[in-house]
Amino acid sequence: MTLEDPIDPTDPVDPADTSVQRLLALLELERVDRDLFRAAAGGAWPTGRLFGGQVAAQALRAAANTVDIDHFVHSMHGYFLRPGSPKTPVLFHVDRIRDGQSFTTRRVVAVQEGEAIFTLSTSFHKHEPGAEYQVPIPQGVPDPTSATEWYESPLARFGKSGPFDVREMKPTPRDERGAIETTRRVWLRIRQPLGDDPALHACILTFVSDMGAVYAAAIPVGGRLDNIMGASLDHSVWFHRPVRLDDWVLYDLRPISNAGSRGLVQGTFHTRDGACVASVAQEALIRPLK
Amino acid sequence: MTLEDPIDPTDPVDPADTSVQRLLALLELERVDRDLFRAAAGGAWPTGRLFGGQVAAQALRAAANTVDIDHFVHSMHGYFLRPGSPKTPVLFHVDRIRDGQSFTTRRVVAVQEGEAIFTLSTSFHKHEPGAEYQVPIPQGVPDPTSATEWYESPLARFGKSGPFDVREMKPTPRDERGAIETTRRVWLRIRQPLGDDPALHACILTFVSDMGAVYAAAIPVGGRLDNIMGASLDHSVWFHRPVRLDDWVLYDLRPISNAGSRGLVQGTFHTRDGACVASVAQEALIRPLK
Repeated sequence: MTLEDPIDPTDPVDPADTSVQRLLALLELERVDRDLFRAAAGGAWPTGRLFGGQVAAQALRAAANTVDIDHFVHSMHGYFLRPGSPKTPVLFHVDRIRDGQSFTTRRVVAVQEGEAIFTLSTSFHKHEPGAEYQVPIPQGVPDPTSATEWYESPLARFGKSGPFDVREMKPTPRDERGAIETTRRVWLRIRQPLGDDPALHACILTFVSDMGAVYAAAIPVGGRLDNIMGASLDHSVWFHRPVRLDDWVLYDLRPISNAGSRGLVQGTFHTRDGACVASVAQEALIRPLK
Repeated sequence: MTLEDPIDPTDPVDPADTSVQRLLALLELERVDRDLFRAAAGGAWPTGRLFGGQVAAQALRAAANTVDIDHFVHSMHGYFLRPGSPKTPVLFHVDRIRDGQSFTTRRVVAVQEGEAIFTLSTSFHKHEPGAEYQVPIPQGVPDPTSATEWYESPLARFGKSGPFDVREMKPTPRDERGAIETTRRVWLRIRQPLGDDPALHACILTFVSDMGAVYAAAIPVGGRLDNIMGASLDHSVWFHRPVRLDDWVLYDLRPISNAGSRGLVQGTFHTRDGACVASVAQEALIRPLK
């Protein structure tokens, strides 16, 4: 797979969309010292606390900024520790855990006002060819550019404005054994060409992989936006193959377990060609509002 | 669910099995300082390098030793950095990242001869009741105590001696879309009653969750024990519900992706009653031997 020619000319995006510029600016970290980076204050969306996917994407960017160009991120595992504030900058302290021939490992602590809000462990791998296998793309999914009537979830407003074009499908009903195949299945794409830096595409994928994950984890227990206090607890991404976020990707989240006010979802990203480009796992706190 | 009465009296285990004593002794860490622990040299099995699941279980034990008793582990994410040696003790440095009302977070670095061999991030949660959902237990699995002819994988020898009784099922063939449902489906149980410390059961689950994971990740690309160099890269466990490892649990691993000489598997643990007690994700390096 190459990273060329991602934009379908029959399906134009708006290259002047300012929300994309805002998101990209938030991922442009200032280098304070060799292993210390600062992100501008503010969020990709106007909310009272920072969106977790933004902090995770910035932390991955900080880590990637300290890694030789021929090692590419293959996995990341983060914990959300405290809510982040959009009112102050976020500092990213990178610890160079290991620089190996094949693998490079980094740890990042995101700090605001002296307190850690997020920690990330992440690993980078020098390309090694190998035989291929993957889970297939979910069946029966309409093409993102088709004239389908898309589902309007309570999160649909995030796809109407903001940096991403999002086309949602309905959560599937329980099968005869009570299992739910998917609680969030969406096509998404950033509204502007991104260029060819694979590290930037990985950061954007990280950003979108937190969009709707808590919501997806709340559905099996009847959680909605208005009857729960939800928060991401951890977040893991595995990067399997090259991916462009300025072309459509299908993000599919499946609930695994809800118990003890926690819900785990696992997910995959597939391209329109059916390549499985990344996997995700996230556990969320889902507290009923009394 | 309670943790009482786990042993089926019709299916006796050998309470004098020395391999169990050896494993339990390896999990009895010496407290060198408040947040520094030492594990005895040696492995649960006689191999040239330490078994990853052992180091992960010991790291979790070290973290749990620094956490108030009413916070219980709900997730852990580790990276394997270097092979561990059975010839020297392993030191576990615990960093008290955060002590909250509801959540406690720890980081552990496992060190031998001054070099980090493994890092762990892990989080503990005070019990909060909540509504329940789970993926069902795989269908068509025979009871572990039935007179079934179990499958003999290349890993079967680990179930013949050693601390665990293991009963394997065959990997499933590819379906019409090329997908493989499971590459490792096993009942397993430690050969001796363990007592009622839930932290110990979580450590034993962590130990067994690394058994056969690399093997399971290699199967989709034709990997066997004799034609690959395999190594665990990361390891994540989510603990959903109370679990006893001295009663049978079904461990099921599903391949997600193989590319770039890496393979990701995701898995679940179910009890005989069908409760989903834990989930697992592991990425492995799978290098063909020339």
